[in-house]
Amino acid sequence: MLKLFEYNWQVRKDWFDWCDSVTEKELLEKRRGGPGSILYTLFHIIDVEYSWISGLQGKPEPQEPTFEDYANMKKLREYSARCHEEITPFIYAWNSSMETRILEDGNPTNKLESFKYGEIIRHVLTHEIHHIGQLSVWSREIGKQPITANVIRRGLFDC
Amino acid sequence: MLKLFEYNWQVRKDWFDWCDSVTEKELLEKRRGGPGSILYTLFHIIDVEYSWISGLQGKPEPQEPTFEDYANMKKLREYSARCHEEITPFIYAWNSSMETRILEDGNPTNKLESFKYGEIIRHVLTHEIHHIGQLSVWSREIGKQPITANVIRRGLFDC
Repeated sequence: MLKLFEYNWQVRKDWFDWCDSVTEKELLEKRRGGPGSILYTLFHIIDVEYSWISGLQGKPEPQEPTFEDYANMKKLREYSARCHEEITPFIYAWNSSMETRILEDGNPTNKLESFKYGEIIRHVLTHEIHHIGQLSVWSREIGKQPITANVIRRGLFDC
Repeated sequence: MLKLFEYNWQVRKDWFDWCDSVTEKELLEKRRGGPGSILYTLFHIIDVEYSWISGLQGKPEPQEPTFEDYANMKKLREYSARCHEEITPFIYAWNSSMETRILEDGNPTNKLESFKYGEIIRHVLTHEIHHIGQLSVWSREIGKQPITANVIRRGLFDC
């Protein structure tokens, strides 16, 4: 599980660097399909990972962040780094005995739901990969080569 | 690992069913970003999963399939089912002792490369999720709601 998180974080960093070579106008332009602009999609990925993992850590639901507070690369990188610091201890401590623990999740619009920890951690993993797939289409729309989605040849399994 | 494969296979089936409500012209139209058309992308997902897992099973490199032989939903479903039958015993037998086994991979255009089994199995998993993200953008292009990418609420963790 950890390797797939490390993959996501490495790919996310590569996309942040990719964004540095794209105008703010392109980054903020509403795209068809997906949650919105390129920058909003990256913000959404960070927010969703942070919210769910905070829940698994037993923390109270974080206050809903406002995209406008993070709508440039400097602020988005800081937001990602801050969230990352909070959630990594949990990811590195993950083990199979945690798979069947139950998270009770409720929000104002839904009734209370129960999820297994193993379900949530995979949901978070695939959520990022799915949205990165959307970025790869939009990058071609603005004439740029996307970041490779390959797991292989990233050095993730060298040790 | 198995749960994520089951997720991919369920999502793939949902997309097959989704395709039934789309014209062949739309399914075969070349899209921007990604490997090609919607149908070609699904073909590519099946082919890549089958080729890599066959390698992990110690089988010789399968003969490169020709997309034109599978370019409608009936043939693509049959192709997916046939590949699925061959690879599932390996996926269900997967265990952590196989993580560090080495696959030597060579093809006419590349030098011989070594990969850990754990690297390949995650590569195959993320490969499908990434391309499904691309389908979700294209589905909006043709005015249709995409298949949900959520891991949660699919019944995958009910037992």
